[in-house]
Parts: sequence; structure tokens; C-alpha cells
Amino acid sequence: MRKIANTPEPPYYAVIFTADRTDVSAGYEEMARAMVELVQEHPGFLGVERAEAGTGILVSYWDSLESIRSWQMNDRHQVARQRGVSEWYNACRTRICKVEREYGFHRD
Amino acid sequence: MRKIANTPEPPYYAVIFTADRTDVSAGYEEMARAMVELVQEHPGFLGVERAEAGTGILVSYWDSLESIRSWQMNDRHQVARQRGVSEWYNACRTRICKVEREYGFHRD
Repeated sequence: MRKIANTPEPPYYAVIFTADRTDVSAGYEEMARAMVELVQEHPGFLGVERAEAGTGILVSYWDSLESIRSWQMNDRHQVARQRGVSEWYNACRTRICKVEREYGFHRD
Repeated sequence: MRKIANTPEPPYYAVIFTADRTDVSAGYEEMARAMVELVQEHPGFLGVERAEAGTGILVSYWDSLESIRSWQMNDRHQVARQRGVSEWYNACRTRICKVEREYGFHRD
């Protein structure tokens, strides 16, 4: 997984998932890694970025709203979300966005 | 700073800033905290979420593209970005997005 996703020219879509974590860590990192692997096989997936320190932020990038909906319906993804709500998250928020513009730099 | 921003009903705007950090830590955390404080005073600011672990993700939320542009032009913000490019980041990417939908949960 690249630290910074290599996304195409906008417009495309982003799902910003922010979670306030509980102290429960059993199974969490394993599930998070499994989801990051699984999502990369999903049609329409463009990239993912993840950072975590008490607050966890995972941003995934998509070609369309249809691809996002289809990923939200994925069985294994739904199981992971359910465990998140019951064990790993005090609170979480998902925001569906259209990326309109992007820019950046990288060191040579 | 709340872990999960308390944003209004969409639509509104998000700026996703993702950075691949260098090993240089001098001055970084201090500047990051100063920027998180400063941004909260900026007109049109709605909220911010931050997580970091090698990769740093900072998402700020805004009422309009005009407010985002005005924050990007802020003198102290520009100084911080310049230090980021020269010292703290191997690479970084900024994505400007329109938030179209959001949902979530929090434990009672």
C-alpha cells in the first residue's frame, strides 16, 4: 500500500471514514489490514490512505458513487463494520465526497 | 479538538491533506498544533480531524471554496507549508472535495 494514493485527474470520489477508537484492540489491526487488501480488488477502487493514532482516518478513492455503494454492500465489509460498531469504535463518521481538484509534491 | 468533527448537513467542503513524513521531527508537532489552532479562527472553517503514524492525514471542513482559498493564502499557513516541503514531508497531496453525504454513529 502506497502512503499517498496515486489517483487520476479529478473528478472522482472519496470516502472519508473517521473513527474514535475504543481501547479494544483484539482483532482490530488484522481486520483493518484484511479490509485494505479486500477493497483493492473491488471494481472502481482507485486508492486508499490510512493513518491512525487514537483517531483513525481511512480515505478510499473511487471512480463513481455506484462503486462506493457496491463496496458498502460487500458482505465481508459489512461484517467488519458491524464488529467496528460493537467493539472497536466509540464513534465513527463516513463522508462521501466528490474530489474536484488536487495538487501536491514529492521529493526527487 | 474533537476527534470527529461536528459538521453540518451536506453539502459543504473537505480538504484532505495526506503527507508521507520524513524522519525530521524538530518543530513539526509544535507547528501542526499551531496550525490546528489557527485554522479554527478562520472564517468558514467547520471542523478538523487529524491522525498520524508515518503517514499523516489531516481533513479540514469548510463552508465554501472561497473560504478554502482564503485559508490557503493565509501567511502563517504558507510559512508552515513551506517548512513542510523543505523539512517534514517526502511527499504530500491536497485534495479539495465537495461532501455530498454523511452518516455515522456514536455510543451513548
